[in-house]
Amino acid sequence: MPLLVMKFGGTSVADLDRIKNAALKVQREVERGYDVIVIVSAMSGRTNELVGWVEATSPMFDAREYDAVVASGENVTAGLMALTLQEMGVPARSWQGWQVPINTTSQHSAARFLEIPRHNIDQKFAEGMKVAVVAGFQGISPEGRITTLGRGGSDTTAVAFAAAFGAERCDIYTDVDGIYTTDPRITSKARKLKKIAFEEMLELSSLGAKVLQTRSVELAMRYKVRLRVLSSFEDTDESSGTLVCDEDEIMESKVVNGVAYSREEAKITLVTVEDRPGISAAIFAPLAEAGVNVDMIVQNISEKDYEDHPGSVTDMTFSCPVSQVARARKAMEDARAAGHIAYDELVVDTEAAKVSVVGIGMRSHAGVAARMFKALADENINIKVISTSEIKISVLIDRKYMELAVQALHDAFELEKP
Amino acid sequence: MPLLVMKFGGTSVADLDRIKNAALKVQREVERGYDVIVIVSAMSGRTNELVGWVEATSPMFDAREYDAVVASGENVTAGLMALTLQEMGVPARSWQGWQVPINTTSQHSAARFLEIPRHNIDQKFAEGMKVAVVAGFQGISPEGRITTLGRGGSDTTAVAFAAAFGAERCDIYTDVDGIYTTDPRITSKARKLKKIAFEEMLELSSLGAKVLQTRSVELAMRYKVRLRVLSSFEDTDESSGTLVCDEDEIMESKVVNGVAYSREEAKITLVTVEDRPGISAAIFAPLAEAGVNVDMIVQNISEKDYEDHPGSVTDMTFSCPVSQVARARKAMEDARAAGHIAYDELVVDTEAAKVSVVGIGMRSHAGVAARMFKALADENINIKVISTSEIKISVLIDRKYMELAVQALHDAFELEKP
Repeated sequence: MPLLVMKFGGTSVADLDRIKNAALKVQREVERGYDVIVIVSAMSGRTNELVGWVEATSPMFDAREYDAVVASGENVTAGLMALTLQEMGVPARSWQGWQVPINTTSQHSAARFLEIPRHNIDQKFAEGMKVAVVAGFQGISPEGRITTLGRGGSDTTAVAFAAAFGAERCDIYTDVDGIYTTDPRITSKARKLKKIAFEEMLELSSLGAKVLQTRSVELAMRYKVRLRVLSSFEDTDESSGTLVCDEDEIMESKVVNGVAYSREEAKITLVTVEDRPGISAAIFAPLAEAGVNVDMIVQNISEKDYEDHPGSVTDMTFSCPVSQVARARKAMEDARAAGHIAYDELVVDTEAAKVSVVGIGMRSHAGVAARMFKALADENINIKVISTSEIKISVLIDRKYMELAVQALHDAFELEKP
Repeated sequence: MPLLVMKFGGTSVADLDRIKNAALKVQREVERGYDVIVIVSAMSGRTNELVGWVEATSPMFDAREYDAVVASGENVTAGLMALTLQEMGVPARSWQGWQVPINTTSQHSAARFLEIPRHNIDQKFAEGMKVAVVAGFQGISPEGRITTLGRGGSDTTAVAFAAAFGAERCDIYTDVDGIYTTDPRITSKARKLKKIAFEEMLELSSLGAKVLQTRSVELAMRYKVRLRVLSSFEDTDESSGTLVCDEDEIMESKVVNGVAYSREEAKITLVTVEDRPGISAAIFAPLAEAGVNVDMIVQNISEKDYEDHPGSVTDMTFSCPVSQVARARKAMEDARAAGHIAYDELVVDTEAAKVSVVGIGMRSHAGVAARMFKALADENINIKVISTSEIKISVLIDRKYMELAVQALHDAFELEKP
């Protein structure tokens, strides 16, 4: 029997009516001849309530107890979904993480999958069960404690089950109807993609597109799990949504398939840094320890007069989220006070934003960067920092030009055209 | 290390403040040198919410899914209680039913204990844990599904753990401060008992005193678990509340220790029943099948003229809750229509109440019934039906005299005196 994994997020199972709506989508796939594994999140709002109780009880909480409390939300939805399906005449049962068992590491609240044995669920499919409803986001540690997977855990659970059970596809039902060339709130020319390659989706997720968690896309790419993103709130059929798949499945790809952005970026420059072997490590190790997510890094030779500095010096620039600037500043000042690094000045620009173009076609097409820079120059947008990967070019610009830059790039690469 | 079981019901853990209040009581016992097993209910209102969702989803629900959903309430409280204790510096961890494991039968929503192995929890006590917080009301079936125990399940869980771990005592914290000679709302002379024998408590629970579930008292009596009932909402010490214990622990017992009542009773009489061997079974089997809880039964020879009935005839009277009268009537009419029984008339009196006196001293004292009947006669209260056990005498009377009867009996047996 071909098998499908279907995942419903918190807003898709927010109340009994929505659970029923989701169950109807499951029933339709069963009628098409699939065995189905359904992965459910907690009803929206429940997890926040449970987290709130834990944090109010114990600010420095024991993560094992946190996990035991928080995982209960998914268990409720799993039971209710199984009952809803049964009520429709679909043979279904719920599975909690420990019942499968979903074996994970002991890193509570950030556990990783170790193994998902198929035996128990396969046996029930063999006995006539058509749908296994599995509580997402959770697992069991080698010590027999309940674990959770951290943010976006239910997406990751869905992909892991699709991989373990060799599913034909993993459908992620959510509150948007697919992946767009860019955010439709910024340009009405944004177009829904029929297909997108894993690598592109990975870049877009990392760049702030919230539809899929980066980790679930990574896992899908590694195990070649075809992912489909589609809406819980619309009538959907086999061709709905966006398929995230191997690039071999995409016949002809454009050079650029998406424009992403990240609004709250800061640029931090350490001016006149003593340049010596190991200086990068001396700067970025304390930033990492302080939990600063450093993104773009540029080391440049400033044009100013270095007469006062007889040794070799440089300027070091990096970007990070605006919310982490205070932490970054403290880490740098502490490192300087401890004598680990030396610099004249720390210059912070909190008015930046990042805009990126993403496309696997870039690999075989030259001139993408030039085309991007020209489009921005035509709008008189100054580029502060540039960073590139094999399939992505990102630039840091003044935040006030962000929307304009996204629109200009969307036009320049003709993303409105199929 | 001496061990104590402490159980907190839903109102005692209704919010984070109350959980903290309960945890302070646990901490005090740890400071006194006890290892403690804490049994918790769901935060009050949560179980009803979950049950409501299940019933709205599926009126004829799969009890296995019902149990999986409903048991989640206790898991939340267990985690929060463990975190609260940790925050106070008390080494604690939570245990869900399957982690202990609390092995039960597969009768979902009405499961019975099979075995509670001590190994896992004992090992953690040996490693320095002082408090095991166990989710009440739940267990795991031989098939690995979550089970629940039905009404009052958390009390029963507490007693079962006290038996399995050889606890010195099982303290049931609730919203009343002990067991009274009668309901204080009916007479201000009601007096809190320091001690009460298992058998007496069992009769009082069966008779409608809601403080302890009958099943938990039965289990305590069988395993000689000393139970203490005391208030969550008052300062309590070693001598607080009421101890439910073996009668050997009670030096001198009064003849009567309590007056109980049940307000909504109905009396049903089958008039002129054909009297033959097997007639009782023919009447009461259909009632049992219809789920009617028949309580008192009297078979009497009526004084009326039996001329019309050449064979042997009798009247059969029984009592049941008013809410079950319709079901009882239908069961009798169906049985008559099917030719299984014959009677002239079915007379229903829905204006009855039951009043009972209970005391183990009755066994060795004659004249208790006479004293009871005289007290009622002095108030001109007519007795409709009488039923007795070794340690209890119950009478059915007009409902309007119920309070008066309770007061008269409380006075007659001098229950206000210690």
